[in-house]
Amino acid sequence: MTTQELYGQIRRKHSMLCVGLDTDYVKLPPHLRTGHPAEDVLAFNKAIVDATAPYCVAFKPNLAFYECLGPEGLRVLGETVEYIRLHYPEQFLIADAKRGDIGNTARMYAKSLFETFDFDAVTLSPYMGSETVAPFLDYPGRFAIVVALSSNPSAADFQFAGQDGKPLYQVVMEKMMAISTPENMMFVVGATKADKLKEIRGFCPDNFFLVPGVGAQGGSAREVMAAGANDRGGLLINSSRGVLYASSGEDFADAAAGAARSLAFLLS
Amino acid sequence: MTTQELYGQIRRKHSMLCVGLDTDYVKLPPHLRTGHPAEDVLAFNKAIVDATAPYCVAFKPNLAFYECLGPEGLRVLGETVEYIRLHYPEQFLIADAKRGDIGNTARMYAKSLFETFDFDAVTLSPYMGSETVAPFLDYPGRFAIVVALSSNPSAADFQFAGQDGKPLYQVVMEKMMAISTPENMMFVVGATKADKLKEIRGFCPDNFFLVPGVGAQGGSAREVMAAGANDRGGLLINSSRGVLYASSGEDFADAAAGAARSLAFLLS
Repeated sequence: MTTQELYGQIRRKHSMLCVGLDTDYVKLPPHLRTGHPAEDVLAFNKAIVDATAPYCVAFKPNLAFYECLGPEGLRVLGETVEYIRLHYPEQFLIADAKRGDIGNTARMYAKSLFETFDFDAVTLSPYMGSETVAPFLDYPGRFAIVVALSSNPSAADFQFAGQDGKPLYQVVMEKMMAISTPENMMFVVGATKADKLKEIRGFCPDNFFLVPGVGAQGGSAREVMAAGANDRGGLLINSSRGVLYASSGEDFADAAAGAARSLAFLLS
Repeated sequence: MTTQELYGQIRRKHSMLCVGLDTDYVKLPPHLRTGHPAEDVLAFNKAIVDATAPYCVAFKPNLAFYECLGPEGLRVLGETVEYIRLHYPEQFLIADAKRGDIGNTARMYAKSLFETFDFDAVTLSPYMGSETVAPFLDYPGRFAIVVALSSNPSAADFQFAGQDGKPLYQVVMEKMMAISTPENMMFVVGATKADKLKEIRGFCPDNFFLVPGVGAQGGSAREVMAAGANDRGGLLINSSRGVLYASSGEDFADAAAGAARSLAFLLS
């Protein structure tokens, strides 16, 4: 997918919402838990996707939640991707994987997430340097999404270390921007730091930002919009738990649709 | 496994060798490639494990190489772990995963790698801070192995950024040491930087170091030993391609055993 197509979808739907499919079996509505975790997770994902697709432009399964179910979990991850591709081909599909290895291994992860699975983008952790990212840039129409400034409390442990008078998150972004284009690179920028988001948009006007931390992690979608949007939008604002678990009753899908619609309206 | 058991195994075998199971189907000996990648990888892994177990103390599958085979790949990863547990219960089992996520997701990865799969340890990328590691420390007898200084060229992109007058890799290690003990924390320290290894051992005398970069990546095992060992050893020195692909003929297992034995002798 090109950024032009993604910008087009954002305009049409008046939404920058990304729904995070961090599907945790033990949090499923009780009536869906039949004792077959992988199958139940798949049924839940399909219902959530059907309910929220009109209000979002991207889905983002977090791989930990599938890997922990073993081989069956990866099968269900693949079937979730296939289901979205078949029924909602306009959606942008992000593997939230935070992979961060190099060379041969990074190439294998790129092959896994872009070929074995058919994701448009994958989140990456940059600690090991530009080599962690390079193999992901060789796929036209696909994106590396590098964690720059995250939304968790311990983000400050290392992401503000300095180099050449700049904080590490800026050093990371400038290094990555130097080897990529906005057509193959996005950044994770946490929503709990709206002031930082504005500062970061200043030196990175063109790349999409994937913004976690809205909702459960405390960030405000309005503040994020005001601080982080560029002239065409340029944001994917993620909500996971606030949408997935909006209700634990039989109305879970309607409640998820309502939560997604609220966030989309907020963003329009 | 406790570090005392690991030290005991190192003394008995006169080896600090870790064999990296970065098994790439296209690099298997031609006579093993039957067109069923997952099954062929499993057969190869079993042969390599049988051949090298007398000369090594740890095995380290790299998850990218299994994930890229889809659900079947995870099944084969699980069966490789089970095979080693059954036949070589003294071996230390490392998931080379470089995971780097937080909170709920980190807990899911810990559950995946320590419970769904039965690894003793998992490699982690620290960019998102101490939260990336915390859930992995709650499993007695299991270890987080945090990447501190890696052995690849672009390690220098970010790992030398400064904070409080110290390089980032040291800041990372000191932060991690403050929330852990040598019984649940190890560090990745690259072998291509023997001088750095010595300096790092100075401020971190007690933790095990997992040292990649011997062989294919250019580090010398002798230099690593001299620079990085503590009084009881305290190193796991990894070799992957140099052992796995020592021969592409029908003698691949004997060649792998020979390569592993050479490295073990070097280390004794």
